[in-house]
Amino acid sequence: MTLILALDFGGTKLAAATVNIGSRKWLRYERRLSPANANASTDLEIMRSLIYSLLQDTKPAAIGVSFGGPVDAFTGTVRLSHHVAGWENIPLKGLLEDEFGVPVGVDNDANVAALGEHRFGAGQGYDSLFYITVSTGVGGGWILNSNPWRGAGGMAGEIGHIVVDPAGPVCLCGKRGCVERFASGPYMAQNARELLETQLPKRQRGEVLRSLVGDNLNLFTGQLVSEAAVAGDDLAKEVLHKAAWALGVGIGNVANLMNPQRFVLGGGVMKAGADFWQVMQLVARETALPEVDFEIVPAVLGDDAPLWGAVAIASMLV
Amino acid sequence: MTLILALDFGGTKLAAATVNIGSRKWLRYERRLSPANANASTDLEIMRSLIYSLLQDTKPAAIGVSFGGPVDAFTGTVRLSHHVAGWENIPLKGLLEDEFGVPVGVDNDANVAALGEHRFGAGQGYDSLFYITVSTGVGGGWILNSNPWRGAGGMAGEIGHIVVDPAGPVCLCGKRGCVERFASGPYMAQNARELLETQLPKRQRGEVLRSLVGDNLNLFTGQLVSEAAVAGDDLAKEVLHKAAWALGVGIGNVANLMNPQRFVLGGGVMKAGADFWQVMQLVARETALPEVDFEIVPAVLGDDAPLWGAVAIASMLV
Repeated sequence: MTLILALDFGGTKLAAATVNIGSRKWLRYERRLSPANANASTDLEIMRSLIYSLLQDTKPAAIGVSFGGPVDAFTGTVRLSHHVAGWENIPLKGLLEDEFGVPVGVDNDANVAALGEHRFGAGQGYDSLFYITVSTGVGGGWILNSNPWRGAGGMAGEIGHIVVDPAGPVCLCGKRGCVERFASGPYMAQNARELLETQLPKRQRGEVLRSLVGDNLNLFTGQLVSEAAVAGDDLAKEVLHKAAWALGVGIGNVANLMNPQRFVLGGGVMKAGADFWQVMQLVARETALPEVDFEIVPAVLGDDAPLWGAVAIASMLV
Repeated sequence: MTLILALDFGGTKLAAATVNIGSRKWLRYERRLSPANANASTDLEIMRSLIYSLLQDTKPAAIGVSFGGPVDAFTGTVRLSHHVAGWENIPLKGLLEDEFGVPVGVDNDANVAALGEHRFGAGQGYDSLFYITVSTGVGGGWILNSNPWRGAGGMAGEIGHIVVDPAGPVCLCGKRGCVERFASGPYMAQNARELLETQLPKRQRGEVLRSLVGDNLNLFTGQLVSEAAVAGDDLAKEVLHKAAWALGVGIGNVANLMNPQRFVLGGGVMKAGADFWQVMQLVARETALPEVDFEIVPAVLGDDAPLWGAVAIASMLV
């Protein structure tokens, strides 16, 4: 039996698990939260203690790490974390290899989750797929010829920053009308808030949404917008449909460009409701050329996709 | 010395050449035009006679074919020609193998030209690139890990039908605002014609362009629009800049999604002038995330890119 340790660092929380190669059941599994004032040093300390706690007196054959931020997967060096200070150019692979004396693989969370779904989830048996995660941001990871495609500089997969409406609102990246600007949870919340605040007094849309937050519009989330839309709120529906439209155009464009077999969608979008999925599917189908076949399916590993992907990464090192 | 025969069928014209593997100089080279009322049978007849004419009493080790239309590269079966009737499901690879008794490889022209530029042109030494051809249509071909990426159904590379402006004019594919709708030669001509016909009587833009065709607006071509723009015609500049903008957004989106090292651009766009290239480069750079590096370079093989790609395809069969 060959023991693997998988680690998932998501910015504000860490998860780790151990598993024997070939098994689909965790031997041990733990989660920790990062403190509010975390930096790279405190995160590394939590990682080390989490690993020791999981391993006890066993030794894994390899360690796989999913990191929530840009990584040079070739050297295993973190470029930065968008959430935590001090992660610039930290040689995470080297640090862990030195400490634990086993091979370590590190990649960013979208690539790792894509690999997880490919080896253990909704992508099993498909040799080309694009995994898209829609939550705080919109990101993606490629599997081509059954292997990760990371791009020349490790930056492939940024479907969130494909422009789908050059006349759209400004995204945090500085451009107008990115997929993420419409479809991420925080932007859905912002779009709903702005629609509510700017609608004509006569129009009374958004009542359901407003009631969900006790009239405190700052409490809006993408999840609440989805719930209000399901409950029939017209304003929430408008925001949700625009998100589904943006994602659908993005997916259709990607289909024309790369022609993968499957799109696997994970993250908050899983809970966006049937209406969201229907609009997204329809728009993606209309955007792709008639000759371009593809399927859009929900991810099946949920929050564990990066951990299972980390298992796959580590397994390749054994 | 290993002889290779390369064939390029472009819809209205055929070219063929022979070369020894390792040489960069054609031994023999011939071109033929398809008759106006061509069908698949007459085209096949021309192909056969062209091959016999080139080979004389020699025998190649393999034949590579670039076909101007969708091809199943795995079986070497043509799906159809958009220009010539009767090509539906013609097993071109099988027909040529039966007749000439050597291995034959067939793929569509964008994929083959991409391979040509990769092995013999502007892509030498780069293991990931996207070749874009801008002429009657806008198409593309991928090289990833130094090999063609054709997609699950052989449809990858359709950058021409990426939507860059959902409020844009309707494209022949039925969608609005595709890259091709702005950047192909015929659409540039149409856009210039429509601008001229609908401008207010007071405005006297397009004088240069109009003079180039002796006031017969039906004679407009993308090439003439480029020439008028270079000569300072404001209306032509507007059309050209919109084409450059559309291509730039498309390229920037592709860079975010796949992060290839290079974009190699061939076709009529080569003659579009420095202004076109500058706008396109700028928009592509602004559309891509700051961390996404890439270069956009002109193709170097010109009209011979598909022939050299066909050499590469045949060489892999030897």
